[in-house]
Amino acid sequence: MDIGFIGLGSMGRGMAANLLRAGFRVTVWNRSPEKAQDLVRDGARLVPHARDVAQASGVIVTMLSDDAALRELVQGEHGIGRQLGQGGIHLSMSTVSPQTTQELAALHAARGTHYVAAPVFGRPDAAAAAKLFVLCAGPQAARQAVMPALQAMGQRVFELGEDAAAANVLKLSGNFMLMATIESLAEAMTLGERYGLPRERTAEVLTQSIFPAPVMVNYGRQIAQHAYEPAGFKLSLGLKDADLVLGAARKVAMPMPLAQLVQGRLLSALARQRGDMDWSAAAIGVSEDAGLKPSSSARD
Amino acid sequence: MDIGFIGLGSMGRGMAANLLRAGFRVTVWNRSPEKAQDLVRDGARLVPHARDVAQASGVIVTMLSDDAALRELVQGEHGIGRQLGQGGIHLSMSTVSPQTTQELAALHAARGTHYVAAPVFGRPDAAAAAKLFVLCAGPQAARQAVMPALQAMGQRVFELGEDAAAANVLKLSGNFMLMATIESLAEAMTLGERYGLPRERTAEVLTQSIFPAPVMVNYGRQIAQHAYEPAGFKLSLGLKDADLVLGAARKVAMPMPLAQLVQGRLLSALARQRGDMDWSAAAIGVSEDAGLKPSSSARD
Amino acid sequence: MDIGFIGLGSMGRGMAANLLRAGFRVTVWNRSPEKAQDLVRDGARLVPHARDVAQASGVIVTMLSDDAALRELVQGEHGIGRQLGQGGIHLSMSTVSPQTTQELAALHAARGTHYVAAPVFGRPDAAAAAKLFVLCAGPQAARQAVMPALQAMGQRVFELGEDAAAANVLKLSGNFMLMATIESLAEAMTLGERYGLPRERTAEVLTQSIFPAPVMVNYGRQIAQHAYEPAGFKLSLGLKDADLVLGAARKVAMPMPLAQLVQGRLLSALARQRGDMDWSAAAIGVSEDAGLKPSSSARD
Amino acid sequence: MDIGFIGLGSMGRGMAANLLRAGFRVTVWNRSPEKAQDLVRDGARLVPHARDVAQASGVIVTMLSDDAALRELVQGEHGIGRQLGQGGIHLSMSTVSPQTTQELAALHAARGTHYVAAPVFGRPDAAAAAKLFVLCAGPQAARQAVMPALQAMGQRVFELGEDAAAANVLKLSGNFMLMATIESLAEAMTLGERYGLPRERTAEVLTQSIFPAPVMVNYGRQIAQHAYEPAGFKLSLGLKDADLVLGAARKVAMPMPLAQLVQGRLLSALARQRGDMDWSAAAIGVSEDAGLKPSSSARD
Repeated sequence: MDIGFIGLGSMGRGMAANLLRAGFRVTVWNRSPEKAQDLVRDGARLVPHARDVAQASGVIVTMLSDDAALRELVQGEHGIGRQLGQGGIHLSMSTVSPQTTQELAALHAARGTHYVAAPVFGRPDAAAAAKLFVLCAGPQAARQAVMPALQAMGQRVFELGEDAAAANVLKLSGNFMLMATIESLAEAMTLGERYGLPRERTAEVLTQSIFPAPVMVNYGRQIAQHAYEPAGFKLSLGLKDADLVLGAARKVAMPMPLAQLVQGRLLSALARQRGDMDWSAAAIGVSEDAGLKPSSSARD
Repeated sequence: MDIGFIGLGSMGRGMAANLLRAGFRVTVWNRSPEKAQDLVRDGARLVPHARDVAQASGVIVTMLSDDAALRELVQGEHGIGRQLGQGGIHLSMSTVSPQTTQELAALHAARGTHYVAAPVFGRPDAAAAAKLFVLCAGPQAARQAVMPALQAMGQRVFELGEDAAAANVLKLSGNFMLMATIESLAEAMTLGERYGLPRERTAEVLTQSIFPAPVMVNYGRQIAQHAYEPAGFKLSLGLKDADLVLGAARKVAMPMPLAQLVQGRLLSALARQRGDMDWSAAAIGVSEDAGLKPSSSARD
Repeated sequence: MDIGFIGLGSMGRGMAANLLRAGFRVTVWNRSPEKAQDLVRDGARLVPHARDVAQASGVIVTMLSDDAALRELVQGEHGIGRQLGQGGIHLSMSTVSPQTTQELAALHAARGTHYVAAPVFGRPDAAAAAKLFVLCAGPQAARQAVMPALQAMGQRVFELGEDAAAANVLKLSGNFMLMATIESLAEAMTLGERYGLPRERTAEVLTQSIFPAPVMVNYGRQIAQHAYEPAGFKLSLGLKDADLVLGAARKVAMPMPLAQLVQGRLLSALARQRGDMDWSAAAIGVSEDAGLKPSSSARD
Repeated sequence: MDIGFIGLGSMGRGMAANLLRAGFRVTVWNRSPEKAQDLVRDGARLVPHARDVAQASGVIVTMLSDDAALRELVQGEHGIGRQLGQGGIHLSMSTVSPQTTQELAALHAARGTHYVAAPVFGRPDAAAAAKLFVLCAGPQAARQAVMPALQAMGQRVFELGEDAAAANVLKLSGNFMLMATIESLAEAMTLGERYGLPRERTAEVLTQSIFPAPVMVNYGRQIAQHAYEPAGFKLSLGLKDADLVLGAARKVAMPMPLAQLVQGRLLSALARQRGDMDWSAAAIGVSEDAGLKPSSSARD
C-alpha cells in the first residue's frame, strides 16, 4: 500500500519509519528536506513539493505543528485535497482544534475526498517505538482503510465515531488532564516540601500507591527535580494546546476553570522566558508563589 | 501482641478485623458499642470506656472522624496518653491536620509516650481486604514496633521519617490530588459531551491510555454516569479534607490555587444539598455551569 | 464641518444626534435604514451605501458592534478607506481589540488616511445626553481635527497618545473593571444575605461610604434586586468584551486571573440562557453557587 | 459621659482623642502605656489594668488587632464583661469575625451586659479627623446610648439592626471589595503597561471617568507607582481579613472565588516577604506573573 507523509518533525519521523517497517511504500515531503535523510536511506521516496506526495485515491498522513500549517496545506490552490482525487483519504494526526477539523472535513467532503482525524498520545520516543495511543474518528470506510497504517504506528487505536472533530476534542482533553496533573503534582510536592518532605518522596509515594500511571511517574520525577530541560514537549506548545482547549470550550459555552488555571500558569511561565523548557516547568511558578527559589533548571 | 483499637467506623472495623486475623489480641472501644459485635464474635474484647483500651506500655490504634474527636481523646483528663504509660505508642491512623499531629506528638513526648501517624489511602473495601496503602511517620523505634500491625492492615507501608506530621501532609496531598482528578475528569467529559462524545467513552479512552490508575477508572465511571450514591466517601468529608489542605498550606504561606478551586466546587455542592453523596458529585457542578442538567443521581 | 456616520445602533443614534445639534453636517448610513428616520428629520442626510458616506479628505465616524463588522467596512474592495482619500480620517469609536486597531491603523496609514480610535464609556442614555467619556488615541493632527466632534458627543475626552490601540486597551480595561465590580458586589451581597443583611442594605452602605461611584450605585441596585431586564448592556456583549480582554492579554503573555474568573462567570450565564439579560446577571451565578434561588429576573 | 477605651494603636489613638474633644471623660488602658501619653496630656485618665477601665453600667470601647486579643479581653476571669456590670455596654469596633461577635454577644447577654459591634472604614488619618464610616449593629437601646460617641468618631454611622454580627460581615465585605479593587486595578494597569500606556495614565482615566471613588484614586496612585511603603494598612493584616472573609463564607457554605483569588495573591506576597508593605503590594505579583520586574518598592 502506498502512503504519503507530510511533516517530519520529531514525532513524524518515527511514525513514518514505522510505516516503512510495516511494509508500506512511503512518499515523504517536509519543509526542511534534510530531516528526511534517514527515512530515504530506509526506503522512503522524497518529493520536492507537498502536492507530489498525493497519489490518486491514495492516503496522505499529515503530522504538522498547528492549525495554521494544516489549513495552509489543505485549503490553498495547490491544497492536498485536490491532488488526492476522488476517494482519497487525508489522515490528519496533528493536534488541532475541533473547529479546524470540522472545516477541513467539510472541505474534503465537498471534493469527494475523506478526512480522518487521528491525533495521538505519546512523545517522540513512543512514536519511534510504535507505542502511540491513537484516537481515530471520521467516515467509517475511510477509518477502516487506514487502520493497518494506524496499527503500524501505535500500540492501540481507539475508534470514536463518524465525527472527526471528536478525536481532536478527546486529544485536547487528554492534554488538558496532563496539564492538570502537572499543576496538582507541583502543588502537592511544594506543600510537602514546606513541611520537610523531600519532593521526590512525595512523587514516589503518590505514584506507587493511588496514582500508578507511568505518565505521572515521569512528570513526578521531573517536577521533583525541577529538571525541565531538554524539553520532551515544549511549554510554548503546551500553552498552544491550552488555548485550543479553552477555545473549544468557549465555542460551546462551557466554563473550564481548571483549564483556565493551567493556561494562566503556562502563560506566566512563557512571560518568564520558559517557553522552550518542558511544559512541566509550569511547576516552577508553584514554588515561586510559595516564596521558594527552585534551583536546578529554573532560568529567571 | 496486645493492641487497643478506638474508632470502629466503616474503615476501622475492617482494619481491626485484619489485626485479629493476623493474630493480634485486640481490645476495642467505640462510642456506639453495637458496631463492635462482629469483632467481638471474632475474638476482640470490648471495653466500656476509651481509657480501658490502653495497656501499660502498649499500642493503641485510633481511627477517628476528625481532628476534634482525636484531640478530645488524647488531651482530656482521662486522655489515652495517660493510660498508655511510659513507652506506650499511640498509632494514629485518622486523616487529620499536621498541626494537630504536631501538638499531639509534643504532648505524647512530654508524657514519655510515642505518637506515630499512619494515615491510609483506601476505602472501606480496601480496609476490609487489608489492601490499604499506609503512610507512616514518627519516632523510628516506635515505627518499627508497630510495623507488624501496619502490615496486617495494608498492602504496603511507606515510611516517611521521624516527623509524624509529614505523613498527614502526604495523606492530605493524596486526597487533594483525588479532588483535582475528579474536577479534571468532569471538565474533560463535559467538554466531550458538548461535542457529541459519550461521557463513558471519554473516561474509557483516557484511563486505557495515559491514565491507567484504577482510582481514575473508578471515578471515571462514576462521573460518566453521574452515579454518586451510595457514597464511597461522603462529599462533606471530602470538603473537610479540602479545608485541612488549605489550612495546612495557609500555615506555611503557600498558595494552592487548584486546592482553592476544588474546595469551592465542593462547598457549592454542599450548599446544594449534596453533602451525603460521594465526593465525586462535585462533578455535577461542572455540568450545571455548562448549562446541562445531569440526570441520574443529581438531587436539586 | 461635514462628517459621515456609520452605525446607528442605540449608542450611535444618540451620538449622531449630538453632532447635528452641535452644528455638524452629518451624512449617515446604516444597515437598517429605518433607524435613521429621526436623524433625517433632524437634518441628517441618509445615503444608500456605506461608501457614499465618505467625503474626500473628510471624517467618518464608525460605531459598530464588533471587530468583524469594522474590518469588513474598512478592508473590503469598497472599504471606506478608499473613499476617504488622502488626509481623510476614520474616527473609530467601537469597542474592538487592540489587534484590529493596529491592523486597520496600518492599512489606513498605507493609504494616506488616518485612523483615530475613540471608544467610549457610557450607556445609550449617556450617549443621548452627550455625557460619554471618550478615550482618544491616534496621530496627533488627526486627533486635533476631530476634537470638536468628540467634544460634541462626550462630557470629557481623554487623550492617550499616538498609538490608537492604547485607547482600545484602556476601554477594555474599564469594561473588565466593571465586570470585576459586578462579581465583587455580588459576592459581598450574597455573603451579607447569608448572614441576614438585606442585599439592598449592603449595596447602600458600601456605595455611600467607600465606593461612591455612580456606576457602583447603579449596579449595586440592580444586583441587590436581581433586576436584570431590560438589559442596559447585554450579557452576550459583555462576554465578547471579556474575550477581547483575555485575547489582548494573551497576545502580550500576561495572565489575568480575575479576567478569567469573570469570563467564566459570564460564559456560564450564557450557557444558562441569560445572554439577553443585562451583564450584571452574572450575579445570579454567585447566588446559585451558594445554594440560593434568586427570585425576580432569573430565568432558568 | 464616661467612657472606657482599650486599644491605643494607630486607629484607637485618633478615635479616643476625638471622644475627648467631644467632651467625653475618657479612661484608657493599653498594653504599651507609653502610647497613651498624648491622650493623658489632653485629659484622658490612664489606668494600670484593663479591668479598671470599666465603670459600673458604663461603656467600654475596644479597638484591638484581632479576634484572639478581643476574646482574651472579654472571656477571661477578669474579662471586662464582669466589670461592666448590669446594663453596661461593650462597644466593639475591631475588625473581627462574625463568629467571634456571635459568641461574645451571647456571653454578654448572659451576664446582663450589652455588646454593640461598630467596625469602621477608614485609615488612621480618617480616624484622627473623625472621618470614619461606622457600621453599627446590636441591641437597639444600646446602639442609641452609644450613638453620640460614634458620631464623635465618624463622619457617618450606618445602623444595621439587632444582630451585631451583621456589622462585622459588612465590614469584611468592604475590605474584600478593596482587595478586589487592588487586584483589578493592578491587572488593568499591567495590561495597559504591556501596550505602552503609562500605569499612572490608566489609573487617572479610570478614576476620573467611571470610578471616581477617592479610595480608588489613592490605590490607583500607589499601584501605578509601585509605592507600597510606608504601609497605610499592612499586607499581613489584609491577609488576616481575607482569611476572615473566607472563614465567614465557609461557615455558611458559600463559595467566594474572587475572595479566594485575592487571598491567594496576598498569601504569595507574604511568602515573598512583603507582609509589612501596604496591602496594595499584592499588585507586585500581577506584574511579576507578566514577566515584569516592578522597580520601586518591590523587595525580593
